[in-house]
This record gives sequence, structure tokens and C-alpha cells, in this order.
Amino acid sequence: MTIKLPDLISKAEVLVEALPYIRAFAGKIFVIKYGGHAMVSDELKESVMTDLVLLKYIGAHPVLVHGGGKEVNGVMEKLGKEPVFINGLRVTDEETMEIVEMVLVGKVNRQIVSLINQKGGQGVGLSGKDANLLQARRKGPQPPADDPSGEKVDLGRVGEITAVNPESLQILMEHGYIPVIAPIGADTTGESLNINADHVAGELAVALKAEKYILLTDVEGIYRRENSQEPVFLSSLRESEARDMIRKGEINGGMIPKVESCLQVIEHGISKAHIIDGRIPHSLLLEVFTDRGIGTMVVR
Amino acid sequence: MTIKLPDLISKAEVLVEALPYIRAFAGKIFVIKYGGHAMVSDELKESVMTDLVLLKYIGAHPVLVHGGGKEVNGVMEKLGKEPVFINGLRVTDEETMEIVEMVLVGKVNRQIVSLINQKGGQGVGLSGKDANLLQARRKGPQPPADDPSGEKVDLGRVGEITAVNPESLQILMEHGYIPVIAPIGADTTGESLNINADHVAGELAVALKAEKYILLTDVEGIYRRENSQEPVFLSSLRESEARDMIRKGEINGGMIPKVESCLQVIEHGISKAHIIDGRIPHSLLLEVFTDRGIGTMVVR
Amino acid sequence: MTIKLPDLISKAEVLVEALPYIRAFAGKIFVIKYGGHAMVSDELKESVMTDLVLLKYIGAHPVLVHGGGKEVNGVMEKLGKEPVFINGLRVTDEETMEIVEMVLVGKVNRQIVSLINQKGGQGVGLSGKDANLLQARRKGPQPPADDPSGEKVDLGRVGEITAVNPESLQILMEHGYIPVIAPIGADTTGESLNINADHVAGELAVALKAEKYILLTDVEGIYRRENSQEPVFLSSLRESEARDMIRKGEINGGMIPKVESCLQVIEHGISKAHIIDGRIPHSLLLEVFTDRGIGTMVVR
Amino acid sequence: MTIKLPDLISKAEVLVEALPYIRAFAGKIFVIKYGGHAMVSDELKESVMTDLVLLKYIGAHPVLVHGGGKEVNGVMEKLGKEPVFINGLRVTDEETMEIVEMVLVGKVNRQIVSLINQKGGQGVGLSGKDANLLQARRKGPQPPADDPSGEKVDLGRVGEITAVNPESLQILMEHGYIPVIAPIGADTTGESLNINADHVAGELAVALKAEKYILLTDVEGIYRRENSQEPVFLSSLRESEARDMIRKGEINGGMIPKVESCLQVIEHGISKAHIIDGRIPHSLLLEVFTDRGIGTMVVR
Amino acid sequence: MTIKLPDLISKAEVLVEALPYIRAFAGKIFVIKYGGHAMVSDELKESVMTDLVLLKYIGAHPVLVHGGGKEVNGVMEKLGKEPVFINGLRVTDEETMEIVEMVLVGKVNRQIVSLINQKGGQGVGLSGKDANLLQARRKGPQPPADDPSGEKVDLGRVGEITAVNPESLQILMEHGYIPVIAPIGADTTGESLNINADHVAGELAVALKAEKYILLTDVEGIYRRENSQEPVFLSSLRESEARDMIRKGEINGGMIPKVESCLQVIEHGISKAHIIDGRIPHSLLLEVFTDRGIGTMVVR
Amino acid sequence: MTIKLPDLISKAEVLVEALPYIRAFAGKIFVIKYGGHAMVSDELKESVMTDLVLLKYIGAHPVLVHGGGKEVNGVMEKLGKEPVFINGLRVTDEETMEIVEMVLVGKVNRQIVSLINQKGGQGVGLSGKDANLLQARRKGPQPPADDPSGEKVDLGRVGEITAVNPESLQILMEHGYIPVIAPIGADTTGESLNINADHVAGELAVALKAEKYILLTDVEGIYRRENSQEPVFLSSLRESEARDMIRKGEINGGMIPKVESCLQVIEHGISKAHIIDGRIPHSLLLEVFTDRGIGTMVVR
Repeated sequence: MTIKLPDLISKAEVLVEALPYIRAFAGKIFVIKYGGHAMVSDELKESVMTDLVLLKYIGAHPVLVHGGGKEVNGVMEKLGKEPVFINGLRVTDEETMEIVEMVLVGKVNRQIVSLINQKGGQGVGLSGKDANLLQARRKGPQPPADDPSGEKVDLGRVGEITAVNPESLQILMEHGYIPVIAPIGADTTGESLNINADHVAGELAVALKAEKYILLTDVEGIYRRENSQEPVFLSSLRESEARDMIRKGEINGGMIPKVESCLQVIEHGISKAHIIDGRIPHSLLLEVFTDRGIGTMVVR
Repeated sequence: MTIKLPDLISKAEVLVEALPYIRAFAGKIFVIKYGGHAMVSDELKESVMTDLVLLKYIGAHPVLVHGGGKEVNGVMEKLGKEPVFINGLRVTDEETMEIVEMVLVGKVNRQIVSLINQKGGQGVGLSGKDANLLQARRKGPQPPADDPSGEKVDLGRVGEITAVNPESLQILMEHGYIPVIAPIGADTTGESLNINADHVAGELAVALKAEKYILLTDVEGIYRRENSQEPVFLSSLRESEARDMIRKGEINGGMIPKVESCLQVIEHGISKAHIIDGRIPHSLLLEVFTDRGIGTMVVR
Repeated sequence: MTIKLPDLISKAEVLVEALPYIRAFAGKIFVIKYGGHAMVSDELKESVMTDLVLLKYIGAHPVLVHGGGKEVNGVMEKLGKEPVFINGLRVTDEETMEIVEMVLVGKVNRQIVSLINQKGGQGVGLSGKDANLLQARRKGPQPPADDPSGEKVDLGRVGEITAVNPESLQILMEHGYIPVIAPIGADTTGESLNINADHVAGELAVALKAEKYILLTDVEGIYRRENSQEPVFLSSLRESEARDMIRKGEINGGMIPKVESCLQVIEHGISKAHIIDGRIPHSLLLEVFTDRGIGTMVVR
Repeated sequence: MTIKLPDLISKAEVLVEALPYIRAFAGKIFVIKYGGHAMVSDELKESVMTDLVLLKYIGAHPVLVHGGGKEVNGVMEKLGKEPVFINGLRVTDEETMEIVEMVLVGKVNRQIVSLINQKGGQGVGLSGKDANLLQARRKGPQPPADDPSGEKVDLGRVGEITAVNPESLQILMEHGYIPVIAPIGADTTGESLNINADHVAGELAVALKAEKYILLTDVEGIYRRENSQEPVFLSSLRESEARDMIRKGEINGGMIPKVESCLQVIEHGISKAHIIDGRIPHSLLLEVFTDRGIGTMVVR
Repeated sequence: MTIKLPDLISKAEVLVEALPYIRAFAGKIFVIKYGGHAMVSDELKESVMTDLVLLKYIGAHPVLVHGGGKEVNGVMEKLGKEPVFINGLRVTDEETMEIVEMVLVGKVNRQIVSLINQKGGQGVGLSGKDANLLQARRKGPQPPADDPSGEKVDLGRVGEITAVNPESLQILMEHGYIPVIAPIGADTTGESLNINADHVAGELAVALKAEKYILLTDVEGIYRRENSQEPVFLSSLRESEARDMIRKGEINGGMIPKVESCLQVIEHGISKAHIIDGRIPHSLLLEVFTDRGIGTMVVR
Repeated sequence: MTIKLPDLISKAEVLVEALPYIRAFAGKIFVIKYGGHAMVSDELKESVMTDLVLLKYIGAHPVLVHGGGKEVNGVMEKLGKEPVFINGLRVTDEETMEIVEMVLVGKVNRQIVSLINQKGGQGVGLSGKDANLLQARRKGPQPPADDPSGEKVDLGRVGEITAVNPESLQILMEHGYIPVIAPIGADTTGESLNINADHVAGELAVALKAEKYILLTDVEGIYRRENSQEPVFLSSLRESEARDMIRKGEINGGMIPKVESCLQVIEHGISKAHIIDGRIPHSLLLEVFTDRGIGTMVVR
């Protein structure tokens, strides 16, 4: 006989560990910001979409918000138009906005929906215009990020969210669909606006009263480095500690906006925000269905 | 006193005429193929979207299917790629397909949704990939339209519909949204396919058991020209007559595919198909809520 | 071709004007006091019943309250009994009450229900006894209307409403029926009482939380006549102005009780009360489905 | 202590006997033809209405159909019009019809509804016009009852039922009301017709799929008198026996139409028809809630 | 004819008396403590179970709580184990507890369920462990009942109720079942505890918001004996009077805990508690469906 | 950092394997025959009850049927009564039946329910009498199992199932409870009957249209031993093969009734019957949530 008892026991342990979470998360909403390496590697793309479909299988409701800056740059170049960034924000004139919308909605979003369908799920792509999902307004001129008193620059059609109408997402989720959101909004005149995908994900998590807000990143999570000792991995981080670490510079660079996005959703009543390593296959499942989770969880 | 009795009586007559239709059409589905001049003139665009929103107001369920060939050509030209047509069908290589999808889904569809929202409705844009709405396969090489025995040409990623999953449309309609459909499908491997918008509209009308199938065109309707006499406008046309007129050449040119699309939905159980003049403001309302209707109705 | 574009545009305008009202009034209740010329002319009778049926068609809920004094007088005379009025109120002895009830419930109400059925609706006639709709008590001796300190007269079985049980009306309305109410109530011993039809309509409007209270009268509405100038028609009148005009005598005679009935329902939370000209065919439709309405609207 | 055990046991026995019927009849419909002495005696009137209200209390659905010939005659006489009968059927000219409708709907029906309300129930009076309950047509000229080949007489506005729309009764019953039906119908032009109350009750029993059809009469039930022996009371009678007894003349006179009405409902699928003695107080309760019942039951 | 009118009238009176109660008690819950002679006599057992089934027939929801001390003693004796009581409470060691549970759940409860089924009902037996119905804890050492300051005795596995989860009873009742409860609870470790059946019945009455709490006893009810006069039977007793009579010794012996159990449920919002004579056949029906009831009712 | 990637990948694989089953089994019923070593070892008892509770967590509906022969023998011996078996069947006289019922319902069933509650579930114990779950009749005299033509022996109160009323189980399952069934039935007179637990489980599986029928045994499953070679473990076995192996003696001894029980449920439309090794901890979970399952599956 070929079944090995230790393997069975090990399998049984994973199941005993996972099943209570499965029950706990039935009907719960998970808003996932999708980006980084997990959006580039074909293997990781498939692993993320498989995880979404499995989450849906067991009765949870995943919602995916995607970016797509690289794809936008690619099409802009083909059209002979050079991307311009100020302080990391894309300067978005009329023509650029048209390209951004075409690429995010008509290309990147399409590929994700198609892959979800291939994995046995039913994706439905939406942008902020559909069902008036995201109402927005122009951000207006902004000072340089590193010099708040510096000269302000008008980024054009870059928007910030003024209202969220999440009913359409709820209806789609309840009927078995996985919403895939492109971060484009519209102002009251119907004009398209380019919105930061982290912000969109955070606002949707709050509007949908999500169980969890999960950021798929290219780092393991957050480390504490005190006194030049061996850095210590933090599986959980309180709001106050996070603010402290930002102030002390222990959290820095590209990690700051990720952590701030987590802090924002927590302040609005979402109990858990996770920064996880999108480079690990099935990182979503591991985060959701194991006792330790992976990555760093920011909590109140 | 300034109220004029004749005006009141005239208003009352329009209402007495319209109200029974309003009752009859509550909860009924209207699939509308949107194209031609009504998609170009800003005034007509607004008039069509107003009509859709009013139809929704009174409890009917409009579904819009749009084309967008001119917009595709425009972007292709900007990208330095020349549109190629054989027998009126766009030759669609991989790169063209990507552009078609970006433009129809990411631009044309976006503008329509945005305008519906501006008029007080709630549009939701979908392509055939969303919720697996349209499953399709490549059409394969086709002979020239005017020479069925001529050499066949492979049009590339041009598709024909193999299955329709209309549940997502029904859910969206029941919850108050107006679905706006871009005519893109996917095959079993998830590959995008370019599909004729008339076909998409016809197949959706059948799958949704639509009350009416309405083609917005640039003609008044169908005329009969017998013995070089004054042409007679036909407000209604039986299936057999239509086939007869095609055979005799009384219906010809660009009108043939329109009429054939009507004949196809009628054969599949839809009781009424209308070819109407999209150049008249509020042509949809006039078709639906008046005794005579406008344009030509094809019936069994 | 025989369709004239200006006619179409004019029709479209009426529809574009009416459709938002149709949506707004779905499921809303309209209590209509039916009387005057509209209850005498065969053409107007048919026009009123057609309007009720059309209102029902589009999902609104009309409720009709009728009078019938002339018919009562007719039967009384046949029975050799002379009608007696004091201050415009019918002196109602036992025998008169029996005749009033027979005529209003067994004749006038029957004719209205029958005509509604003929027009394609489903009328259900009720008096205040059915389902305990109207509980009432004797008004007791009343002073002359024009001399509050004059000698009081006992009018016999003339009642005033003490309680309304509108559940039966709601049930009938929800199931597609048009309730037609004869203004007869019963006291706690089951004794029949003759009640003023305007009061019945007003109390029902309040109990049903009606959207509109509409009085079909034999005048165009209310005019303001200042300084012997050309009288100005008032399409809308505020509560305070109305009271002012009554005090100043600008509203007088038979118009006073009509306006007071409007003021009463407005005080109890009904937002709009309308005095309209029942002599115009389809006056109900015109009031409900046009921007200007007809007649005079009394508002808070 | 004052409670006597034998009395308690006797009470308990009645309850043990009645309770299974109470369960069995929950939600069941009883159509009762009300007439004879029970409609004259004040004590019996109150007893019948109490029984209806108690039946409603325990979840059964009584429907009452009443006649009222004596009351009609009374009013006709006051109006100086002589009632004319041919073969026991009232000759009903236009004027008579108007009086019949006024009296049955506006007087008799009103008194019954009022008495039901007094007993704690909620009566709703209806005639065949309400909610199109009874569609009818003129019977046309009839031969004398005792001479089928004799000269036919036109009875005027005497009708026979062509269709029953019982939905309104079902809705009213389900919402706790007791329908009280006056036997007046309308033809397709809306003209009133005078219909035999037994026929109305029988047709309603069939249309409502009543559990029981009960005729309140002025006899104990049916007796068999064979060979001039002591007559034997029949508590139950098969369809074939009943026909036999009519043929042999053992059932005769005014009893024939009663029995024929029972036979008619039985042929249309109603399992039990009862001829009971309306002169016994609470005869309805005793029929429904005791093992033996009272009166004669006609069965298939 | 063999039907006697006086008998009919007498039957009718019982029905007229009972029917309003039948309506009033539809859907209401009756918690019945079953014990004494009614649990010994075969005839009374059948009468009680018949009453439960009839109550269920008419839409009421009876719940039975039983004891069974004699049966427990019988099995203990067979197992060579002597029952020990201190102050009337069974000393319950581990082994005794096992026997108590086996006998109450596996024997007494089974016989009741079986008899309910035989009478046409559907019994479902439960103990406090099923669906966590009764959570309990050990009572701990108790002083003698007649000497509160005497030496405390540990009664072992005798429990008192800490929480009631009545959902399972509600579900079973709503689906037509009659719950039959054995008075065994479990503590937080799952250990079985022996609980007084009167307490269980009282706690369930409170948790279920019962309409009535009925104690089947071996006495007629409560008498007042003042001044050595003829004792007066009390059909109703106020809370304050009851406490007074206990204080004065007018209520004494085995009657004290019965009355106290009634007082307890009344304090927790149950409006009526009844001590009735279980020796009268159909005592439950007579209590519930007659104006006077039987036995003594304790009220607020 | 302490998280090891290979462990994560291994965990992820178990989850990816299990999740589709979790979805597939939501709302599905599993009937489990509980017996053998898993009913003796404290560790295995806890593991089985944990598995039941986890199955319930994820939306499946487990139903447990238990035996308990050893416990019955234990109590019989204490009562000085010797168990008698003929052909492996317990001879069940009146007294033995009473003991069997007391022990299975009042002891074994109680312990299982209590342990389910301890593990976080909500057990509800039932025997065949509750809600008339199992109707049965005496089996009557049986020949020896190994000699069908031998002298028949009357086993007394040993029953076979004549009807199953599974509604109560469905109601309990739907409301979150885990039914635990003792294999006792009742005949039409209410007399208790001792029924084989495998038969009870099989009949319930069929009546409940269970997804799976699982026998917890003390063997790994079924082996094929051909030509004295190494025995081959069979993870799946077709009906025809199973019958073949029984005929050839490859399946023998105590395995025959287990396999026959599986064949019986398969014949009645249950698609899968499993003989699994109850000695492996969490054997239920491993059977249900892994691709290979454990033990031998008998299929059509």
C-alpha cells in the first residue's frame, strides 16, 4: 500500500488549521491591490488568479484592483509620446489620459479578466465610470513630495476620489463574479481622471467594509532593524508603532506609501491590512488560510 | 389665463397613446444596435442616451451594443498601421486585435457609459469576456462576399459566436444598470476575437428573449419601388416578403445585412425587429411609445 | 413617406416631459374626489375612468371618492320624499339615510365600477362599512354656517370621521384593483352615517399617505384679482396665501370648502393638493404627467 | 369547590371531537348560501354572523352569498311598482333591475356587513361587478318550468353566469376579510343582470375549490319516506340516490332546486354539499365541527 | 329524527366558548411540567398525550418537561444500588448520574415520545445536552431545607441552570414537532448534571416567552382556609397573595415549591402560571379552552 | 526570518488540492457509520468529533449513526443478565430491549453529543422514534447465517426498517445541528426494536440522498490478492468487481456485510460509498478533502 501515514497526518494538520478560517471567511470581502512582480511573471499571474478563484469557490468575495504603469508607457512610446513623471506622479494631459484609459481598461483589465475565466472563475472588469463606481475630482497643482513648500505643479487629469458607489460590486460578488477594477474615475462632467491604484483599493476596502485589505508587493514584509543587529521580521505591527517607524526612518522609500495606505484603511474601521510578498506562489491563500499568515499585518 | 386647451388636448392624446405601451413594456428587454450617424452627432448621442435612461425610468430594460470602426481606424493610423478590409471585413492580425480591443473597450465604450451617467442613468460597460458573456471561435478563411466560389481569405482574429451567457446582463438590468456591450469575444483559450456588432446584438436579443430588437441606422426604413412608381414606405414587412425583396434586388447593398440580422432574430423567436432612422432625435422613444412607430418593423 | 418630422418631434417632447413623472409616481397613491360636471357628462365620465385605468397601468394607485347628491334627490322624489337642506347640509332622518345608502352604494358606485371595468380596469366598490374602512359618529346639532351663534339644528344621521382603517384599500391597490369609495360610515353600533365626500377623500389621502390629493371641480382653478385689474391665474398657492385670500374674501362661496379641504390634508403631511378643472378631458393625466400641471396646486 | 367533573368531561369530549376538524379546516373555504328564516330572525342573524366570525378566527375562510327578494318587493311597493313573477322567476325590466341592485347591494348587503363588523369580524361587501367577479349574459326567453314545450317568456335582465374571477375573493380572504356577495352580475357591455343566489353560491364554490358548499334552509334536511312508513332522516345521500329520489318524486317542490344545486357543485369536483337547518342556532358551527354534522350531506 | 336540539345547543355553546381561545393561542407556546399521577395511570398518560397532539393540531406549540424519579429508583434497585435522598434531593454520585441519565433519556423520555407518536403527533425527545439546550453548573453543598444554618451536604452531580439555548426547540416546534425534555444538563466540561424538572420547565417557559406555564399536579389547585370555615377554592391568585399565604402557612408542604416555581416564571415576564389537577382526564384542554379554566392560576 | 518557503509551498499545495472539494461539498450530506476502534480510543473519538465539527463549519452536513454493543454488554452484566448471540445477532428479549435502548440512547448517544458540543459543534441525539424517524417491524425467525436451510431462530425484538422519515434530520442539519442517531426503531404499535447500525446508516444515506456514505472501520480498505502475489490495495472498486470478489472469497468474514452495505446504498442511487480506516486520525477529513482519498471507494 502506497499511502504514507506521516504525509496523511501532515495533510490533516493543514486542513484542521485551514477549515476554521474557511468558515470564518464565508461571505467576507477581500480587497486586493495587485501589482509588482506578481503582475509580470506568467507563473505568478496564474497563481494569483487561481487563488482568487479558490477564494470565490469557498464563498469568500475577492475584489482585485490593478495598476499597469509599464503597459501604459509601452503604448505611449509606440504612439511617439514620452511619459513624464513629477515626484513619481504621471503628468496626465488629455492625450495621455486617453491612452491611460485605453490601456488600463482595454488591455490590462482585459487580460486579467481573461485569465480569471481560464482558471474557472468569472471575472467582470469595471472602471470607476461603470455604475458610477468612483466619483472623483482633479487633484489640482501639487508641491514636490520632498519639498512641501516648493513650487506646485499641475499634473493635469490626475484625480482623487470624492465618493464611492459600491452597490454594483456587491451585486456582482453576490452573483458569483470576481470584480476587476481599473483605477480610472470620472468627475461630475464625465471627464476621465487617472487615480492611484493603492488609493482606489483602500477606498473600496472601506466602502465595502472588507474583512481584509491585502497589498501584493515585492517585499517579504516589514523588518525592524534596531542597533545594527540582525533585522527582526514583524508579522504584526500596531498603528502607533508603524507611525513611529516612519518617523524614525525605519520604514522608508517606496514602503512609506504602502504602509500609509494600510494605516488609512485601518483608521476607517477595517480591522486588518496586510503587506504580503507577491513573489511567493499562492501568497493570497497562505495569508488567508494559515494561522501565522505571511507578510506583515498592520492592526489598530 | 395662459393654458391653451388645444395644446392640452394634444398632450393628453400623446399620453393616452403612450401609457398602454409603458405598462406593456415594464420589465421587457430591448436590445439596441447603436451605430451610424447617431454615434457621430453630439446632439444625437445625447438624444439616444436620454432615451435609454427614460426607458430605464419606466421599468424597461435597454441593452446597447455598439460598434466603432472609425475610432479604431483613427488609432491605428496614429500607430502607423494601415487598416485592411477584405469584402468589408477587417483583416485582424494580433496587433490589430489588440488595438480594436483597446479602442472599443477602453475608449468608445467608456464614452457611452460616461454619457449615460451624465443623463442620470447608470451605465455598465462589458465586453464578451466579462462574465464569459460571449464565447466565440475564429471564423476561419472566408470566400469573397460577392463570389462564394472565389479564393478564401483568412481574416485572422475575426470570430463568430458559439455561446452566450446572458446571466450577468440580467442581474445588472434587474438592479437598475444599463449594460453597454463592446463586440469582443474570447475563444476557449482566452484569445480575443473581433465580432460583428450586428451579430452580437442579434445573439443577445435571442439569448435575453428580448421584446424588441432595434437597429439604429442611417435610413428611414424600407421602401418598395414597384413599376418605377412613387416608392412606398413599408412600416411593416413580413419575413417572406423580406426574403422575396432581397431575391428580387429590391433590398440591396448595405441594407441586406441589416435585414438579414432582423430575419435571424425573428427565426429564433423574437417577435419584432425594427430598422429605424437614428437620425431623428428620440427615435427610440418614438418607436417604442407610439402606435405607428417609426421605421420598418420586420415580423414573422 | 407620410410621417412628418415636426409631429414626431412634438410627440417626443411630450414623452420626454412625461416619462420622469411616470417613474416618480410608480407605486404612489392618488386620492381623487370625483364630482361636478365630470360626473354628469358621458364623455367626461369616460375620460376620467380612462385616466384612472391608465394611471393604474403605469403602476400608480388611484383611489376614487364619489358623491352623488343629485341621484339621491332623484330617488327621494320617486319615493315621494322631499330633500331638506339646512345650510347646504342634507337633513338625514332614518328613512333618508336608507335611501342615501341605497343610492350611493347600490347605484352611483355601481355605475362607476362598471365603467372602470369597461375601460379595462378592475374597480372594487366599497363604503365606509366594508372592512371597517370609516368609523364615524353623529356630528350632533350644528349652528348655521353663516351665523356661528345662531340656533343649532340637528341634521340627524350626518357623521364625522373618527378613525380610518385603510389596510383593505392598500391590499386592493397592490393587487391591481381601483377602489371606488361611497361616503358612508358607521358608528360603533353599526348605524349608517352620511359623510361629506370631500372630508372622506381628505381623510383617506392622509391615512394612505397619498402622493397627491386631487379635487375634480367645475372651475379652472384659483385666480387673484387685485385692484380690479385683469385676474391672474395661480398655478400654485402657499398655505399662508390661501388663508390670507379666504380672509380677504378673494376666495369665497363654494370655493372655500374646496380650499379648506386642501389646507387640511396639507397640514397632515400630504405635500400637494390640487384643485383642477374636471371639465377638461383627461384633466387627471394632464395634471399628473406634465411639468406645468393644470389647475391650482396648494402647497405648504 | 364548584367545578363539576361530569360537566368537565362532557366539555372535554366536545373539544376532543371538534379539534381535529379545526385543524383539518384551517385555510379551507366554505361557501354559504344565506337565506330563509335565518335571514329574518334577529337572533338567527346574529347567530349566523357569530359563526362566520368564529370560523374566520380559527383560520377557515367563509364566503357568504345572500338573496333578498322580500326586501326588493318592499322597496318596489314603496315606489308603486308591482313585482311580477313567472314560474317563480322575477320578471326584471330596466327599472326593476335598478331597484334590485340598489336594494341588494345598497341595503341587504350593507346590513350583513355591518352585523359581521359588530360581531368582531371584518366584512367586505361585493357584487358581481366588483373586480369583474361575475361575468354573465341574459338568460333569454324561458319556457314555463312545468311545461318545457310551453310558450317562452322573456324575463328581461335575468342573467346566467358565463365566467367567475375569484382572485379578489381569495385576496380578501387571505387578508382576514369575510366576503359578502350580492347576486348581481354584469354582461360584456357593463349592463347589470339579476342572478339566482343559489347559482352564484354554487359557481363560487366551484371556482374557489371550496371545501364545503352549505345551503342554509328552512328544513331539517332530507327524509326518505318508503311504503308509508315512518320517514327516515338521511344524514348523507349519494348523487345517484338523490337523482333517483327526484325522479320518484320523493324529493319535490322547493327542495328540488336546492338538491340540484348540490348535485351541480359535486359534479364539478366539490366533495361535500350540505343542506342544513338554518333555524337551529349556530347551525354552521355544528355542521362543521361535529362528527355527525347536522342536516343532509350530498356526496359523490 | 334522532338529533336532539338541547344536545346540539349545548355542543354549540362549548364551541362558541372555545373558538376564540383557539384563535388566540395559534402560534403560542405552552410549557407543561408533566408528573404525578398523570404519569402513572395508563388512561391519564393517553389523555395527556392526546391533549398535546390536539394542541399541536390547532397551531399551538406545547413543550413537555418530564421527571421520572420512581423509574430511576427501580433501575437503581435492580443494579443493587440504594437511592439516597437528603432534604428531598437525590444524592447523585457518578454512578447514580449515569443511571439517572440512562433512565430518564433512554427509558422515560422514549415512552413519552412513543405514545405521542401513537396518538398521531410527532414527538422529539431531547435532554439539556442536545443543541446545548441547558447549560448548568453543580449546585455545590446545600444546607438542610428546614435548617438554613445547618451543616451543608454535597449532593454531587446535582445542577442548577446557568443558560438556556432555546433555538432548537423553536425550530422543532415550528416544523410541527412536540419537544419532550428530560431534565439533564451539562457543565462546561460536558459532565452530566441532574436538574430539578420544575426548574427546567420554569426556565424553558421564560426562555421561550411561553404564553402559559402549566404544572400538572395531584391536587385540584389552591384553597384558602380562613377561620376554620369551609375552605374556598381559588381559581386565581395574585403574586402578593401567594407570598402572603406561604408566609402564613396556608400554602405548605409539597405545594410550596410548585407555587414558588409559578412565582418565578411570573417574575420573569410570563403572564400566567397554572397549577392544575392532572387527575382529571383532558385537564390540559379544559384549562386552555374554557373560560373558567380549571385549577388555580397565579398572576402578577 | 523564520518562515520556510518549502513549507509554505507544501501548505499551499494542500490548500489548492482541498479548496475545490470544499466548494463542491457545501450543502452536501455525509452519512457516517461510526464504530470500531474509533469509538474506543479517546484520541480517535476526539479526532472524529473534530472532523464532524469542521465539516459542519465549511457548510457540509454530517450525520452520525453509532452502534454500542460493548456498552450494552457491560450494563447487562451489571444487571446480571448474560448477552446471547445467535449467528452474530443479539437475541433481544423484552428486558434486553429495554437495556439496549437505555444504553444506546441514554448513555452512548449522550457521550457523543457531549463530545461534539465540547469540540464547538451542536449535536442533537435522536433515535428512530423521534419524529418517527425509523419505522420498523420484527425481522421474525431467521435461519443461521452460514446455513440458510437450517432451523430458524426467533431473535425477539430485532427489527428491520420499513420506512424512513428524514425531514427532522434535514431541518436540524439546515439549522446548524449535527444529528447523532441511535439505531433503535419502533413498530406501528410503538414497540421498540433493535436494528443493525450499518442498515440504519445505509437507509438514512439513501433517504437523505447523501453525497457520500462512509463506514469507519478497523481496516485500511480492500486488498486484491491474486495468485499469491503481493496484495494490491484497491482505492476504488466497481460494483461488479465487488460482487465478483465476494463470490470468489477474496472478500470474506466481517468485511462481507460492510461491502454489502456499500453495494446496497449504491444500488439506491448514492454515487459513492467509502470503507475507510477509522484508526487514522482525521480519517474523515482526509477522505473528503484530498484527491486520492483514503480507504476503498465502492462505485457503480
